[in-house]
Formats: sequence, C-alpha cells, structure tokens
Amino acid sequence: MEKAHVFSKYPLMVLVISIFLNLFFCMRVCSGSEDHDQSDLSWSRKAAEEAESVAAISCSGHGRAYLDGILLDGKQPVCECNNCYAGHDCSEFIPNCAADATSGDPLFLEPFWMQNAASSAILVAGWHRMSYSFSDKTYISQELENHIRKLHQVVGNANTSGRFIIFGAGSTQLLNAAVHALSSNDSDSSPSLVFAKIPFYQVYESQTVFFETKDFKFEGDVSVWKNNSNATTNLIEFVNSPNNPDGQLNKAVLQGRNAKAIYDRVYFWPHFTAIPAPADEDIMIFSISKLTGHAGTRFGWALIKDEAVFNRMTTYLSLNTLGVSRDAQLRALKLFNVILQGRSGRDIFEFGHKLMSSKWEKLNQTLSASTRFSLQKMGSQYCTFFRRVPEPSPAYAWLKCEREEDKDCYQVLKAANITGREGTVFGAESRYVRLALIRGQDDFDQLLQRLKAIV
Amino acid sequence: MEKAHVFSKYPLMVLVISIFLNLFFCMRVCSGSEDHDQSDLSWSRKAAEEAESVAAISCSGHGRAYLDGILLDGKQPVCECNNCYAGHDCSEFIPNCAADATSGDPLFLEPFWMQNAASSAILVAGWHRMSYSFSDKTYISQELENHIRKLHQVVGNANTSGRFIIFGAGSTQLLNAAVHALSSNDSDSSPSLVFAKIPFYQVYESQTVFFETKDFKFEGDVSVWKNNSNATTNLIEFVNSPNNPDGQLNKAVLQGRNAKAIYDRVYFWPHFTAIPAPADEDIMIFSISKLTGHAGTRFGWALIKDEAVFNRMTTYLSLNTLGVSRDAQLRALKLFNVILQGRSGRDIFEFGHKLMSSKWEKLNQTLSASTRFSLQKMGSQYCTFFRRVPEPSPAYAWLKCEREEDKDCYQVLKAANITGREGTVFGAESRYVRLALIRGQDDFDQLLQRLKAIV
Repeated sequence: MEKAHVFSKYPLMVLVISIFLNLFFCMRVCSGSEDHDQSDLSWSRKAAEEAESVAAISCSGHGRAYLDGILLDGKQPVCECNNCYAGHDCSEFIPNCAADATSGDPLFLEPFWMQNAASSAILVAGWHRMSYSFSDKTYISQELENHIRKLHQVVGNANTSGRFIIFGAGSTQLLNAAVHALSSNDSDSSPSLVFAKIPFYQVYESQTVFFETKDFKFEGDVSVWKNNSNATTNLIEFVNSPNNPDGQLNKAVLQGRNAKAIYDRVYFWPHFTAIPAPADEDIMIFSISKLTGHAGTRFGWALIKDEAVFNRMTTYLSLNTLGVSRDAQLRALKLFNVILQGRSGRDIFEFGHKLMSSKWEKLNQTLSASTRFSLQKMGSQYCTFFRRVPEPSPAYAWLKCEREEDKDCYQVLKAANITGREGTVFGAESRYVRLALIRGQDDFDQLLQRLKAIV
Repeated sequence: MEKAHVFSKYPLMVLVISIFLNLFFCMRVCSGSEDHDQSDLSWSRKAAEEAESVAAISCSGHGRAYLDGILLDGKQPVCECNNCYAGHDCSEFIPNCAADATSGDPLFLEPFWMQNAASSAILVAGWHRMSYSFSDKTYISQELENHIRKLHQVVGNANTSGRFIIFGAGSTQLLNAAVHALSSNDSDSSPSLVFAKIPFYQVYESQTVFFETKDFKFEGDVSVWKNNSNATTNLIEFVNSPNNPDGQLNKAVLQGRNAKAIYDRVYFWPHFTAIPAPADEDIMIFSISKLTGHAGTRFGWALIKDEAVFNRMTTYLSLNTLGVSRDAQLRALKLFNVILQGRSGRDIFEFGHKLMSSKWEKLNQTLSASTRFSLQKMGSQYCTFFRRVPEPSPAYAWLKCEREEDKDCYQVLKAANITGREGTVFGAESRYVRLALIRGQDDFDQLLQRLKAIV
C-alpha cells in the first residue's frame, strides 16, 4: 500500500486515460484483421507496392513512368516524357518543337483510367492462364465474350444476337483475317478484288498488298468499280464507319450478290459519333484501342453472322498467333468491367465525348479566324445512347488547305511547326492533312497554339 | 478520493498491466506505418485482394480458379478441373476417363511459379502502356530485349551478339514472318520452296500452306530435295532443334548458296536437352511457352543476323498485329526477372530438368517391361549450363508400336484409354505416336497408369 500511495493522487484519472488508450489501440489492432483497409496481403503485396511506387514517380504531369520502363539507376524506371517536354521529371518545356498530330494514339482517355485507378488495376499471378487454351478448348475467354455482348447491348451500337465473336490482336489482325475468310473460295479461280472508298485508312491497302495470296488482290478506290458490275468476280469492300480520317458514317458502295463488306466499326462509340441505331452488318470489327484507349494491349473483336466465315477466321487466328494473348484478354475484361459498373457506360462515354467535342469546338473557333484552312463538315444526328443530339466530336480533323498556292498542305503545316499525316496516305489529294485529336492533352494544346500562330 | 478507494486495492497492478497493454498495442499500431508488412496500399489494394481471394479458392490440387474464370454465382470464379477430375472443387476422380497426352501444353512448370508467387506477380495499373508504341517509337520493350540478351548469356544457349531481336506472338507468328522475309525477293519469279525433315512439327506445313503467297510454297519432306541441288530456286528449311516430336538436336539438311534455314530453338533450354554450345544460326526462334511454361501469354522472339531479314520481319509484325501486346511483354519481363534473380537461372532449370528427367525415367521403366512399344533413343552429351552430362529429359515421347499387327499405333493406345498425337500428323508412319510429357502432373500420372495396364 506504500507504493500505491505514490500513484494515489490521480489514480483514477491515469487509469481511465490508460484504459481509454487501450480501447483506442485495441479498436485499431483488433479490427484490423476484419477491416477492409487493413486486411493482410501475402504474396500479392510486393507487386502492389512496386506498382504504387512506380505510379508515385513524379513526371510533372507531362510524362509517366512505367513498371517496364528503362532503369537508369538500376532501381526506378525513368520518366517517359510527352512530346515537347524533357528532363528527368519532364519539367523542361522545349520551346520550338513541332506539335505532333500524326498517329491516332488514343491517349485522350488516360486521365479517365487514372481517375479509376482502384477499379481498373489487375494483379496477375505468376501462374495465371499458362495453358494454350481455356477450359472449353478455345482461345477465347467466355467471360470476356459475355462482357462484349453486354457492352454492345448497353451502348446500343451493334446487334450481337445470332453473331459469332472472334478475338484478334487489335482490329489489325482481324482485317486481314476477314479478307482471307471472304476470299478463300476454291471454286473461284480468279482472285477476289479488294476495295475501299477514298479517303481511307492506309492499313487497308498496305496490309492487303503485303499479305496478298492467289485468292485476293488490293484494287484500290471503290469508285473505279462502282459502275462496272462484273457478276463473276468476288468483291470485298472495307467500310470504315465512322471513317478515318473524315469521321463520316460511311455505307458500303458495292452492292449485289458478289459484293461483301468488312465493316470497320472501331470508331463507332459515343466518344466520336452519335449512335443512330445498332450496326447490323455481316462482319463488324471493333477494338479496345478506340473504346478504352488501350492501343498497346492489342485487343479487338469481330461480330460475324456467317458460320463458315467465322470458322475460316478462327483457322486464320490459330495458324497466325494461336489466338490472342490471355494477358491482353484479362486486361480487356477488367476494363469492360469498369465501363459496365455503376452508370452502365455513361461515365467513360460522357468523359470521352465531353473531351472530344470540346477539342473540336476549340479547333473550329481557332480556324474560323481565317479562310486559309477548312475542316470536314460534321452532320448532327440523334444519339440513342445520350438521348439527345450530341455536339460533333470526331477523332480526327480532316484539314484542307484552301489557298490556291497551298497545294502541299502537309508542308504548309510543317513550316508552321505542326506534323500531321499527308492526305496522300489516305489516297486523297495533298491539299488534305489529317490531324489526330485523340492524342493526349499536351499534344492538342501545342497543336492549337501553333495553329493560332498561323491563322 | 472516495471513488479512488474502490480501485485502491491493486491500483498499481491494474495500471501497470494497462500501460503494458498500451505499449504492446502502440508497437503494433505505431510501427505499422513503417513496417514493410503493414505499409499502406491505396489504389492497388483492391486488385491484390481480388487476386489473393481467387488464388485461395480450393480446387483440391486438381484444378485452379482464375481471375477471368466463369462466375457461376456472380461472385467467385469456378474451379477449372484437370483432365479426369470433376466437381465444384475438382475432388471427384472420373475412373475410366482417357489419359490426355495430346497437346504440348507446358503446365509442368506451373508449380514453380506457385512456389515463386511473390516475385512473379505483377500489378498492372489501368493506364499502363496505353500507347501504340514505346517511347523510342518501336513496338519492343528495351528492358525486355536487354533481359533476353542477358538470359541467353547466362544459359549459354544462343549467341546474341551482332543479332537483331524481334518479338512475336509466340514462335507461331515468327515462323511465318521468317518465311515471308526469306522469300520476298523481287528479282526471283519462282516461289521459294519450303521444307522440313520428317518427323516435323505440323504447324510448319499447315501454316505455310494456309498463308501461301506467290513468293513461297510448302514442298514437304526435305529428303526428297536433298540430292537435287537446283541452283536457281530459293530453298527454305525449318530446322527444329531439339526436334518436336523426337527430341533430336537436328541440323539443316539443305546446304549451299540458295538454302536458308529457320532454326526453331524453342526447346533448346536445359529443361529438355544438354546445351553443348551456344546456337549460332542466322535465324533462331525462341518462345516463353517452353521456357517458362506460359503458352497462353503468346510471347516469342527471334534472333536475326541479317538486317534486311530483320526489317522485313518487322514490317510483317507491323502489318499483321502492330507488334506484340504490351501486356504480354510486361508479363515476360517479370518472368525473366525471376529467372535471372538469385542463382542466375539455376532454380527454374534445375526444377524443370529434374521433373522432366524423372518423367522420362519412369516412362522408360514402365515400357521396359514389354517389347510392344519402343521409345526414341536419347543421346547423352555434356551440358555447359549444368557442367555435367545430364540425364535425358525430352519434352515428348516418340513412341513406336513394334508389333507387326499394331500398324495404327494411335488406335492401339486409344483402345488402352490413352490419347496421343498420330505419327502421321508429323509426316511419319502411323506406327508412331507422340506423347506429351510436358503437361501437368495429373496428366502424366494417368498416362503412366494406363501404360502400366497394357504392358
């Protein structure tokens, strides 16, 4: 009792405080095992920490570091800077560099995925899907196929009922697989002739020419053939709708028993166009590149009506690459999951459309100050997805140099420190240049600045 | 003081206990923020938890659940059972099912990656590598290329110096890219003739026939051409070394100015063969499928001496698929990282060789009880990697039915409830059957059991 007296002055208070502290600590420690935020991770923790550590590398908002980036110091990957930025943290602006509006690199959606970091991340175990095939012996994830069908239904941009689905490494692989499938006809000795309507996406030509077989041959501009209905030759037409470069909702030009169309529908999403009605063609090709912005993942799909065409395309995919990387399929599945969560696709398409329509508006405002350049006319239509007539929001500007002397529009822009893509690449006149608007914000800001300087 | 008396009996003891408890809790809570195991994760936590939750699904050791598996209850992916197992947790053995030794699905390495779970996991952020290209404008990860060169150096199985490296969707895509590149010769009007030595991997034929152009044509067995040295025709030979199906270290049969070889080196790893010296051919093709067991990732590479061939193959890859999925490249990089860590590749190759040589030994023991079947002879050679003469460890058994009446060996095995691959598929007699030994343990156990029953 002698010792107790030392503490006897405020024993109750000290004890109460101590017990409260006990309760407080106990709540934190004891609840930890059940609390979501404190649950213990084991083997996955290291990968999660690596990813967060790389994501935390500051690149000044003008670049990013990746898990697989170059390790200069052997530890942390370097910042990979946007065009016109340099320095170890991309903070140095390069004053007189050329604005890059060349390739259709769809980085405009990168901020969306950064905003949805938690729901869009995936942790891939070392033993994930090592096998050649899924448990149903195919190269196609059934869950992913289900998600694709659901997404088309929610967006209302394609009729999937009664359609087979095949996956490819982006639309690129599927385009040639479709040409192969439509042209492989043993009874027909003359090769199928392949067409597209000018201006057209250059890969239709370069790919078809490069992989030419005895069964097909690239013939070029469809308008040449339009009035020449040869009944014995098999005709194949690439139809890009909306069209790269000019954003028009093209329809097949060739009609008749021997005419077959491959509808490239990669831009047929509410980011870029009103959706007047679900597309309903025999062969429709889509990809995540222009839907989610993940061009590097190399994932696309085709909706196919005819079983024989589907089977031939499946053989193509097997003998070409044994299907599509399971890692790419897992990634696509997670992205579709995010899109379909919550507001059923409204989040990503509202984000995408708002951004693209604002770019288009700014570009129009800038160019309206002069008659030197003109842009393609974008029609307005009711969109069943947005339930209104949306503002135009094309992926590309199809710019025309209007002055008589500006015959080489690419060079006119080049002199103004803007790199676009020559109209001739699309089979059109050199008076045209395509400017990609779907790139990142830095690229667009620089483009606008350079344009303002010349108009 | 009245109240204090209530506690006055053992106030010191209670207080001391309480303070000790506080210290204990404080150590747990306060150290948490710095302790590695308790560091806070933010956006990556959900993905990590999802992966661990799926990995924790019990499939009785005879199956596995995957992140992208079918969700029957809308929550947890189902168990995907190994051959001969069924039930929601793969615990039901199907007594009279056929042993599957058909495809070369390299699941033998799955346990290795499960043992290395923490180091082999990757967390992929939603915005990871969205662009079409890396910052150097290629489709090829520089870090991954560096890792490949380092791995070949450590293993000593290929000379990479002065070689270009190109990536493909497994060896599959690279095989045809190489045929295209070697045969595209504008000055030569007759098509290049493509050969392989019987028995050969069936894709050499089926792929070359399917994608035939005016520049090349599959001609078949190389022995037909051997003594017919036509100086004007371009000849291309597939050389698989070690060979699928018989494990032999083949060399090109065709020689001379117009003969070019595509060396398929996918089995040239210490799992399957002694490494006598680094391979040093003009075109060598490898893949992770037979190195790490990740067939589903679809990642391979080619080492190429001639720049013009490299450029033509690069064009092929661009126009076919715009390169290889960045997700597949990230996965491959992580796997190479694990292999190169610590004991410089010894862990995985010792694991793989031990397993494969033990399978080969058991198979030989089983079949030695009878003269009904024979296996290919495996030579013994010094291995520069293991620094000894390793026991044989081929990926496949090339089984021959020796009895006069057993002309259709596939059917003989089929009757004994074993599914192999017909010798005719490899261009050989129907007296041969290939049995895949690189599949998972369940498949091998069943194969051995069925074989024991018939010998």
